[in-house]
Amino acid sequence: MLRQANALLPIRAERPGLHEFTDEVRDFVAKSGINDGLLTLFCRHTSASLVIQENAAPAARRDLEAFFARVAPESGDYEHDDEGPDDMPAHLRSALTQTQLSIPVQHGKAVLGTWQGIFLFEHRRNTPEREIALHLIGE
Amino acid sequence: MLRQANALLPIRAERPGLHEFTDEVRDFVAKSGINDGLLTLFCRHTSASLVIQENAAPAARRDLEAFFARVAPESGDYEHDDEGPDDMPAHLRSALTQTQLSIPVQHGKAVLGTWQGIFLFEHRRNTPEREIALHLIGE
Amino acid sequence: MLRQANALLPIRAERPGLHEFTDEVRDFVAKSGINDGLLTLFCRHTSASLVIQENAAPAARRDLEAFFARVAPESGDYEHDDEGPDDMPAHLRSALTQTQLSIPVQHGKAVLGTWQGIFLFEHRRNTPEREIALHLIGE
Repeated sequence: MLRQANALLPIRAERPGLHEFTDEVRDFVAKSGINDGLLTLFCRHTSASLVIQENAAPAARRDLEAFFARVAPESGDYEHDDEGPDDMPAHLRSALTQTQLSIPVQHGKAVLGTWQGIFLFEHRRNTPEREIALHLIGE
Repeated sequence: MLRQANALLPIRAERPGLHEFTDEVRDFVAKSGINDGLLTLFCRHTSASLVIQENAAPAARRDLEAFFARVAPESGDYEHDDEGPDDMPAHLRSALTQTQLSIPVQHGKAVLGTWQGIFLFEHRRNTPEREIALHLIGE
Repeated sequence: MLRQANALLPIRAERPGLHEFTDEVRDFVAKSGINDGLLTLFCRHTSASLVIQENAAPAARRDLEAFFARVAPESGDYEHDDEGPDDMPAHLRSALTQTQLSIPVQHGKAVLGTWQGIFLFEHRRNTPEREIALHLIGE
């Protein structure tokens, strides 16, 4: 019998950059009692985003952060800078990565590969609390 | 009782760049009568794409358009230019953003954050009519 | 009556770059017997990714590969290089494209546009076998 589960997950990254929350997602799936289905994560912000990335190497994480800081730099000549120099680059880095991710669930688990972790990519310096909407449909 | 709703939404942007269609999506969800579920938007093109971005500041929109024009410029040395100088950059900008977006729906509304709007990112200059496939599953 | 179908699709690209697998996806949908629903493709790797792109012009494909090779070059100064010079660029190119794609299905077919093909974007040189998780919910 197909059914749905929902949750609103608050996350505060301790600093800008990649912040893993694979465990929180795993807990949500486990508690839902849904074994097979489709899980969706939705980031309710335009200055933070989602990525699935390498979960083992902190150096890969640092390279990823450095790359996006270079591609969409704070030193850019932006018209929109009401909230400071990290405002517009945050929108650009969000547009280049994901606002939403969906992952099939089987046998009670998201079918992530061995090296895949789920990350909030915080692009602001004051690291506000963020909300990720979680949705699961299945049986 | 879970069920589905579908629609094909035609959109023509008045000019290249970001074109908001959050209201059209809201109407589709409202008319479906589905209160809780998962909404999916799919862009049936490879030279236009989807983004969820800041809905309040036109300057942020202009910065975003300028950024993608710089990252994937018309002046690039492309092999594929059958349809003019905006042809290949359109494919590149599409690849860097989204062809599809899914958003959980609760209490009859997509769970967008306060500052989130849904945009068609039109990358061509002749701005042809585009088709966005809408799908909603829920109850 | 809504139900689900799942499969794990192994793919090995013959070389780095874009490798179309629209036919394999079409077969999965056809075999499932589900006519209307939502199809999800999930790439279980962080050094290969998914894109929907132009299916007709090989030149567009080459331009796309050249673009990502330029944006996230092997010659970059990366901290993470355990597995060789194509290691970190692979993660960056994955972060810039998609780990997951969802496509509505109608009348037994994914609602792809005329020029849209589904591609594995292989970013490694040794082109290991990859796994794409396929999920379909519908009726």
